[in-house]
Amino acid sequence: MPKPGQPLPLFGFFRRLLGQDRAFRQAIATVTGSTPDNIRLYHLAFTHSSVVRQQGDTARHQSNERLEFLGDAVLGAVVAEYLFRKFPYEQEGFLTEMRSRIVNRESLNQLALKLGLDKLVQLDPGQGRAARSRSVNGNALEALVGAIYLDQGYKSARKFVLGRLIKPFVDVKSLTLTTTNFKSKLIEWAQREGKSLRYDISGQPRPGGVMEFSATVLLDNEAVAMGMGLSKKQAEQTAAERALEALGI
Amino acid sequence: MPKPGQPLPLFGFFRRLLGQDRAFRQAIATVTGSTPDNIRLYHLAFTHSSVVRQQGDTARHQSNERLEFLGDAVLGAVVAEYLFRKFPYEQEGFLTEMRSRIVNRESLNQLALKLGLDKLVQLDPGQGRAARSRSVNGNALEALVGAIYLDQGYKSARKFVLGRLIKPFVDVKSLTLTTTNFKSKLIEWAQREGKSLRYDISGQPRPGGVMEFSATVLLDNEAVAMGMGLSKKQAEQTAAERALEALGI
Repeated sequence: MPKPGQPLPLFGFFRRLLGQDRAFRQAIATVTGSTPDNIRLYHLAFTHSSVVRQQGDTARHQSNERLEFLGDAVLGAVVAEYLFRKFPYEQEGFLTEMRSRIVNRESLNQLALKLGLDKLVQLDPGQGRAARSRSVNGNALEALVGAIYLDQGYKSARKFVLGRLIKPFVDVKSLTLTTTNFKSKLIEWAQREGKSLRYDISGQPRPGGVMEFSATVLLDNEAVAMGMGLSKKQAEQTAAERALEALGI
Repeated sequence: MPKPGQPLPLFGFFRRLLGQDRAFRQAIATVTGSTPDNIRLYHLAFTHSSVVRQQGDTARHQSNERLEFLGDAVLGAVVAEYLFRKFPYEQEGFLTEMRSRIVNRESLNQLALKLGLDKLVQLDPGQGRAARSRSVNGNALEALVGAIYLDQGYKSARKFVLGRLIKPFVDVKSLTLTTTNFKSKLIEWAQREGKSLRYDISGQPRPGGVMEFSATVLLDNEAVAMGMGLSKKQAEQTAAERALEALGI
């Protein structure tokens, strides 16, 4: 398996872009804090699938979706370590919840905008609103983390995530205090859309004498998502969160 | 933030174990392929929560659950990179599916047994079967990856995952060929338990002219899980997979 830093056997597609764009190289250096070696990886990170879709489904690996998969995993590991060290007396459930507050779609989109990544993302303008969905920039940020990882290694990716994302922009302390209320967010949306909203709750005893609850979100009597939890409230929150995700809200 | 390798400000609990157990240190070196620096991390990795539970909830950070959270993330990143490089022309969905086939609970348990980790795990024998749940060994494996990461850094953790887990024990090629059939697994279980099983399916049009389906698994008419997909079959598979997870099967 090739080591990070070695060129990948792909992306000849981007070769013709090379040499032309010192400005792009400079922008990457400014955003990441280090000079890129394999600039093709960064071009790939900012190539939305709408750009390559014209070339048919076989070209889809030339979009940033694969790098996004990789970057999401690297980001998850870096943030896991950060939280592990920052909160030495908190349990796994707390760490998991905190991580999802830091790296959720909305938060990643905001971080991407703060870094100005929206100016680097390549979209197919012909595809209009669909291509400009809210997660485009957050996905590009994940892909950028993947590109730095392949180009410069784990340490550099970690340094970027901690030094350029978490420390300057994420107020971890205030995240521990806020409770994202998915239920109220869903209620507001349903009211706006004129849809009826209710939860079906059921409980089941589990080994160890605890009850586990499951909540199903029904919009206009149609189940859209389901959540489990050790309290009715927790099950409803999880179900509401998944409903928001499933509905793309 | 302390760098990997520095001692953590915890785990005084384990100090008294030190010096006594050259055998444990030797076992870790054999399993991981490198001599541990901070042996306390490895003791922690093999301490199931049942051992510290007697000391009350405040001692729970002295079990392997936090390291499991960290190791799970590191494992996810290493496997993501491995698949990214191994399958340069496959899309993100394929990579995600392959990763979950490699690092799912059952596979991790099997890998842990192959490494003999069950002989290292510390359980409270008083707690019997509950403490010896099937995921104890797989969780300890994840925690071990977390311990190696903190003790020796990312490169060593990566080397361990690739050289001691994936390459010797995971037949990645055959994993691409098998389809885990969650639906049949759930049917078999329901028949064995004498429960009725059915799926509620509904479909919704999505932007771009595609239909998205959602399937709810009902056991004895009670919703236990739900899945979405771009085909009815895919939605049912996802729902069945989640049902198996929720039921602990």
